[in-house]
Amino acid sequence: MTNAPENFRVEYDLLGERQIPNSAYYGVQTLRAQENFRITDITLAHFPNFIRALAMVKKAAAIANQKLGQLSPELSAAICVACDEIIAGRLHDEFVVDMIQGGAGTSTNMNANEVIANRGLELLGHRKGEYQYLHPNNHVNLSQSTNDVYPTAIRLGLLLSYNDLVQAMETLCGDLRCKAGEFGGVIKMGRTQLQDAVPMTLGQEFGAFATTVGEDIDRIREMVKLFREINMGATAIGTGINTDPDYAPLVVAELSQIAGVPLVLADNLVEATSDTGAFVMFSGTLKRVAVKISKICNDLRLLASGPRAGFGEINLPPMQPGSSIMPGKVNPVIPEVVNQVAYQVIGNDLVVTFAAEAGQLQLNVMEPVIAFNILQSMRMMTRAMDVLAERCVRGITANEARCRELVENSIGIITALNPYIGYENSTRIAKQALETGRRVADLVLEQGLLSPEQLADILKPEHMTQPRRVAG
Amino acid sequence: MTNAPENFRVEYDLLGERQIPNSAYYGVQTLRAQENFRITDITLAHFPNFIRALAMVKKAAAIANQKLGQLSPELSAAICVACDEIIAGRLHDEFVVDMIQGGAGTSTNMNANEVIANRGLELLGHRKGEYQYLHPNNHVNLSQSTNDVYPTAIRLGLLLSYNDLVQAMETLCGDLRCKAGEFGGVIKMGRTQLQDAVPMTLGQEFGAFATTVGEDIDRIREMVKLFREINMGATAIGTGINTDPDYAPLVVAELSQIAGVPLVLADNLVEATSDTGAFVMFSGTLKRVAVKISKICNDLRLLASGPRAGFGEINLPPMQPGSSIMPGKVNPVIPEVVNQVAYQVIGNDLVVTFAAEAGQLQLNVMEPVIAFNILQSMRMMTRAMDVLAERCVRGITANEARCRELVENSIGIITALNPYIGYENSTRIAKQALETGRRVADLVLEQGLLSPEQLADILKPEHMTQPRRVAG
Amino acid sequence: MTNAPENFRVEYDLLGERQIPNSAYYGVQTLRAQENFRITDITLAHFPNFIRALAMVKKAAAIANQKLGQLSPELSAAICVACDEIIAGRLHDEFVVDMIQGGAGTSTNMNANEVIANRGLELLGHRKGEYQYLHPNNHVNLSQSTNDVYPTAIRLGLLLSYNDLVQAMETLCGDLRCKAGEFGGVIKMGRTQLQDAVPMTLGQEFGAFATTVGEDIDRIREMVKLFREINMGATAIGTGINTDPDYAPLVVAELSQIAGVPLVLADNLVEATSDTGAFVMFSGTLKRVAVKISKICNDLRLLASGPRAGFGEINLPPMQPGSSIMPGKVNPVIPEVVNQVAYQVIGNDLVVTFAAEAGQLQLNVMEPVIAFNILQSMRMMTRAMDVLAERCVRGITANEARCRELVENSIGIITALNPYIGYENSTRIAKQALETGRRVADLVLEQGLLSPEQLADILKPEHMTQPRRVAG
Amino acid sequence: MTNAPENFRVEYDLLGERQIPNSAYYGVQTLRAQENFRITDITLAHFPNFIRALAMVKKAAAIANQKLGQLSPELSAAICVACDEIIAGRLHDEFVVDMIQGGAGTSTNMNANEVIANRGLELLGHRKGEYQYLHPNNHVNLSQSTNDVYPTAIRLGLLLSYNDLVQAMETLCGDLRCKAGEFGGVIKMGRTQLQDAVPMTLGQEFGAFATTVGEDIDRIREMVKLFREINMGATAIGTGINTDPDYAPLVVAELSQIAGVPLVLADNLVEATSDTGAFVMFSGTLKRVAVKISKICNDLRLLASGPRAGFGEINLPPMQPGSSIMPGKVNPVIPEVVNQVAYQVIGNDLVVTFAAEAGQLQLNVMEPVIAFNILQSMRMMTRAMDVLAERCVRGITANEARCRELVENSIGIITALNPYIGYENSTRIAKQALETGRRVADLVLEQGLLSPEQLADILKPEHMTQPRRVAG
Repeated sequence: MTNAPENFRVEYDLLGERQIPNSAYYGVQTLRAQENFRITDITLAHFPNFIRALAMVKKAAAIANQKLGQLSPELSAAICVACDEIIAGRLHDEFVVDMIQGGAGTSTNMNANEVIANRGLELLGHRKGEYQYLHPNNHVNLSQSTNDVYPTAIRLGLLLSYNDLVQAMETLCGDLRCKAGEFGGVIKMGRTQLQDAVPMTLGQEFGAFATTVGEDIDRIREMVKLFREINMGATAIGTGINTDPDYAPLVVAELSQIAGVPLVLADNLVEATSDTGAFVMFSGTLKRVAVKISKICNDLRLLASGPRAGFGEINLPPMQPGSSIMPGKVNPVIPEVVNQVAYQVIGNDLVVTFAAEAGQLQLNVMEPVIAFNILQSMRMMTRAMDVLAERCVRGITANEARCRELVENSIGIITALNPYIGYENSTRIAKQALETGRRVADLVLEQGLLSPEQLADILKPEHMTQPRRVAG
Repeated sequence: MTNAPENFRVEYDLLGERQIPNSAYYGVQTLRAQENFRITDITLAHFPNFIRALAMVKKAAAIANQKLGQLSPELSAAICVACDEIIAGRLHDEFVVDMIQGGAGTSTNMNANEVIANRGLELLGHRKGEYQYLHPNNHVNLSQSTNDVYPTAIRLGLLLSYNDLVQAMETLCGDLRCKAGEFGGVIKMGRTQLQDAVPMTLGQEFGAFATTVGEDIDRIREMVKLFREINMGATAIGTGINTDPDYAPLVVAELSQIAGVPLVLADNLVEATSDTGAFVMFSGTLKRVAVKISKICNDLRLLASGPRAGFGEINLPPMQPGSSIMPGKVNPVIPEVVNQVAYQVIGNDLVVTFAAEAGQLQLNVMEPVIAFNILQSMRMMTRAMDVLAERCVRGITANEARCRELVENSIGIITALNPYIGYENSTRIAKQALETGRRVADLVLEQGLLSPEQLADILKPEHMTQPRRVAG
Repeated sequence: MTNAPENFRVEYDLLGERQIPNSAYYGVQTLRAQENFRITDITLAHFPNFIRALAMVKKAAAIANQKLGQLSPELSAAICVACDEIIAGRLHDEFVVDMIQGGAGTSTNMNANEVIANRGLELLGHRKGEYQYLHPNNHVNLSQSTNDVYPTAIRLGLLLSYNDLVQAMETLCGDLRCKAGEFGGVIKMGRTQLQDAVPMTLGQEFGAFATTVGEDIDRIREMVKLFREINMGATAIGTGINTDPDYAPLVVAELSQIAGVPLVLADNLVEATSDTGAFVMFSGTLKRVAVKISKICNDLRLLASGPRAGFGEINLPPMQPGSSIMPGKVNPVIPEVVNQVAYQVIGNDLVVTFAAEAGQLQLNVMEPVIAFNILQSMRMMTRAMDVLAERCVRGITANEARCRELVENSIGIITALNPYIGYENSTRIAKQALETGRRVADLVLEQGLLSPEQLADILKPEHMTQPRRVAG
Repeated sequence: MTNAPENFRVEYDLLGERQIPNSAYYGVQTLRAQENFRITDITLAHFPNFIRALAMVKKAAAIANQKLGQLSPELSAAICVACDEIIAGRLHDEFVVDMIQGGAGTSTNMNANEVIANRGLELLGHRKGEYQYLHPNNHVNLSQSTNDVYPTAIRLGLLLSYNDLVQAMETLCGDLRCKAGEFGGVIKMGRTQLQDAVPMTLGQEFGAFATTVGEDIDRIREMVKLFREINMGATAIGTGINTDPDYAPLVVAELSQIAGVPLVLADNLVEATSDTGAFVMFSGTLKRVAVKISKICNDLRLLASGPRAGFGEINLPPMQPGSSIMPGKVNPVIPEVVNQVAYQVIGNDLVVTFAAEAGQLQLNVMEPVIAFNILQSMRMMTRAMDVLAERCVRGITANEARCRELVENSIGIITALNPYIGYENSTRIAKQALETGRRVADLVLEQGLLSPEQLADILKPEHMTQPRRVAG
């Protein structure tokens, strides 16, 4: 495209005129935002569900406005069709504003208003920029303000996205539970404070991983519900200035139907317009997920440490050569990348915290960086869970013989003998074993504290790895 | 007390003998912990509900052990009386270990075991230290491990404490709602992005504060429920080694009754023994409270800025002279201290996050620093809420005339005229007002856009601060 | 490109064979990394200076290896030319691995090794993939390990980039100092705790901004020097296994010359290989810059609050329309976006902290997420500074009359009268002024405490805004 | 003490009269602060060096005021003696205000002013409360404001305290270096990514610990210098209102001499009065120390994991029994508590960050929480270093046989053979060793790749743990 005048149209706003490429569906306000906010190179288009949510909001408003007699059926229809196209995934590359932006989301809202207006104009047989027929503000943004549209779209965008995360978590949880079953018969040493403690099964260990991930699915499902409360109709500051009294409930109902998500109108629209508590809570929940998944990855790396100078209890499937200098080395690269994702999510949560605290008076102007961090955390976490399940957990194998040998060789089994030979004997045997390097079982038999049959019975894996009544 | 031998008794553990002051109810393991962990100078005794919770756990275990025939009625009774005394607030100064400690809480557990054993010995007519009659480990700690006692006691300690927080929040919420009523007729400018936006009432502003605090009460109540799930009976790593199969459900039932709190046994005791997810979640919720309360304090300070070169819309009650050098200056000291508490709570949440992530394998050894930070955050936040309600919110007064004048003098009221005179006229008038310093109302009348009656009607506070149908 | 076999070559590693597009300069290990690490969609190519640094490291190693007789002049030359092309900006789109990756940077190192090998092969007249002539590991990576190459390249990448940040800071500092001069004669109220304090000039206020930014330039310059210490020659864990004793100093000298940066070899290579302290320190310094710049933006937004119901002391240049619903509203969008960048930098610093703490034994495997966050923070901060200088600070104007009026109308000037009329009189006058709404000057004159001439002299701006000897 | 009137004196401030216990040296403003700020129960008295610093500042001001003729020699002398007493450690329990307080430190400053005034009154033969003879504000606070006194006292307090930290670090560094020497001959496997890598000595490992701590000593020494720049003479906002032009340099010189610390006057007092950059930087440096020390403790716990199912390379000295349920278990309690201190320091740094960012206009009102967190972090870190050195590092022993066996049994030694038998042979041997469980050395000899003498030479510890020239 050359710089020839015929390739451009002229648009203006209160700062004056600007040339816009004829091919662009966005307009002058989007252009200014692009110029003002060149920060991350990550545009709105990177988060398709957020853009879809924006289009759903605009469509719901158009329908509500029409039903209340404030927008003609023709214009409403044009807006709706344009929105449907965006919802279907088209025109997303017209959403060019940086995710981190000043103006409390005004530029995001105007980017949507302009794209929808220009696409609507085409549908109506006009040319882009002929806003006298369909205006970004007067029609597409009618009865709305950035201050209700933007937070609503973020919330809806998250509601449209969280299911991917939940599915990834369910897959991971299922894979871990599978391994718990597979490893149910593998006896091994449990460890507390990195010191040998008492026996357990490798299945119990993986079962605990599965349980902990499963609990987080519940938390995510609970917390995401906070996003169902929206502030459409609040307009500028929550007082609903310049809206019809029937508009707010109507637009919420329309939006619920369009999105297929049960949304409710906030009780206190002034509060809802400035409050970012739901974001803090949800980001905190993502942080909890991150903390737990990082702990699991730390454990996997520990259990797989070796092959010879470490714990060596499990093998992670090799995913890539480990070293250019050390032949044959294979590293736990998948848990390692998941750890790093967890740290990023924790850091992103701090960004959300800072931004939430910075809200002032009737609006939180820092919502763009909140939206960016939560959307990014959710996506990264989803991908990390997927890769962890697919490229690591499923391929894990147990070194059963090594596990068993560590138990038999351990001093920790003395705890199981405690109720039979007494604490005093136990302590003495433990000490002797530690000092001489000999086996606990050998010392116990040698000193005639138990018969071989008694000892064998007590040390059966199924007896050591669950509660057991001691005969009086 | 002199160092004379008769003032001491000798106790020993696997590291050897030590002299213990005869007056002390704690024993040798507590002494070692005191020496090992001199970190914060803040001992267990600073958190009475935590100590009470420890005693409740020990009492529940004693009763369960007796019912299962593992502890004699006589010893069980002695333990129970000793625990009841601690629950009633006695002997707390014997809990001398630093809140931040190594050993995953073993020193806390042993501090309790030793104090209870020695007090029990006295009750049984023996002397302190005669553990052959009542032993800290063999009897007081029977069927238990630090790894189930300690996390259970932290959880119960929080369950016993959170109500103070909720009450403080309810008081604050009530006081804010009161002010919302009192200021219902005070019209003022709403502000977004620190720029004059559209009118609202000061009552709406305080109503939003009340709502936002009220929502947090719900979150706290929800999240604290996670603490009801406990892992008693897990012993060392969750496999319940050395416990009777009936013990776990029994001890949980006893503890529920003693504490008057509905507790449940965790489904997966291996998971429950190492998991700190509930702490992360609750700390995250405290962080959310902190973020919101900090935002409210920021707003109060802004609205009270002045007296002449600031917003000057409200007056905070003076609590102390503001300056040694500037005569007559009074500062918003109460919101300021609450802001700082909020920052501390946010920082403490990060400590909890780090510590939670550091859990390894079958135990999280960093639980002491988690307990310390959550207990401290909860207490600080409770006190901060109390002081904010009592010493600030209740005494706030409105500068009604100033508020009204800022509205009448504002350009922002043009938004309310928009539906009547059109966006183009509105923009032009706004610009003229800004450039000339004149009033919007004067310009509108002068240009004959509205009659004085129309204008007065539109600008009525009750018309500008809620949705309004515009006649077609 | 079709999937036809002739469009692919086959490469293999220890996991087996894979097809690689013939057009690609990267090889099989890069391909695996691409598949394993699909996390952020932000590839190495987003940070050109980091890629240039990698190429410089590879070039330095090739030269050192040749000088030590371990690499033929022909192969060394081919590697050097390939590296020079990358340094010149070519082939960057072949660096396709995600910035966040497992493997401690091995995939980054191998991406470089493969691209350089394949480009070198072309230069030598071979075809891509014919590694028997020039091998990614045996030749390009000779005497190296990821564990020395990767941290060295991050450090060098930062050394190549920080100057942009410093220039942006210098520009901003200069623009602020300019405004300090411009506003030197504008008398205004200083404020502490958001309460009116004593007079100052707007120039003094902007001068403080300039000074605080200037100090940070010094800190950045100081801290970036920590990156000059590198660990080339450490190979796997710092013991220098499989390197010539002369290699380490030689490669460092070569790299210094190639990069034009004075680099030094770390004293303790074992420590240097696992240590990330310099990253923590530098990221902490970026956090400090963020904190200060955020404070400045907060102040700019406060001072520009209004236009009528705020402080209204300065005007920020309008950058875009502020609101779709409120005609004529203009918002401080540039400081707002800079605030958000500051929060992101603070959050990124936490990621660095977590990752640094997670280093274990002889390596910190979390370095990729460290590199990503520091590089991203540095770039975002640079851009934010640029936009703040260009699109905000330069266009700021003062509302001189408003500023002066607030001073004359203030109670705070009483502090200046203190030495002349005494603290008791001052306090009484302050109280009267507050209660009656009258001016301090009027009250003082009315009560005959000072003559009009005395008063005028004391209240001269130049007398109130600096120390002044009071005649005894 | 009864409530009888004779036990009290009456003081008043602008809020009215209050009864003060006759025994108290503090006065009415301190009393109000005590009531307003009941947050942490941690009073100023917990940080003796901070109180000493306050007294030094007051003494310096008294001397400067006298030299400038603004304070009589008699009053100046009384103030100086009172200050000297406080500097010597007396009257500290009169500093009763909570460390976290509103009012930007005014209450701390007034606590000092009141205690000094009342003690001075006694020295002058008057009674406490007879402020007409020696006034907290008019005399003790003369030429000062909280806004210069408070930040100066924090800085000086840190300058008086940091040496304890440095000494603790030096001790720790020395003890680590000692162990490095002791373990210089212990060959062991190095590990990267928790996988066996190549051999090193345990001495090299401890040497790296020593080096990393040593580098932090340098950083602390550097960064603490930022505190030498103070803003005495700035008074309220940095303009120096109501001070003599000669006062600022004079008081700084006096204070330098009294404190024995080279202090300098900030170039820009307006900037220096609101800026908290030095606190952010120093806290960030403490965070770096925390990160490193936490990494060391993580490593110590890993290396000591076992005794049989872990790495088992070193033994930490037992400090207390490890478990009530597991006989003979000993845990790494000292590194564990140090880890937790590190997390607390990291969390405290976040508090400092938040508080620093919250500074507004001419003052940072959040300095009290900054002071509290930095002072607390420094003390905790000092104690943690001491305990780590004394109760852990010094008593560490090596399991030399175990270390050597892991090397001989490892696959990682193949890397050392690489230059002699080639990468292809190495990879094959590594694979065979992994699959068969056999030793690398045996396979190499069996396959005739090296003679026993060659192999023995290559595998000498001193050859594997440093660079070595390979004969061409």
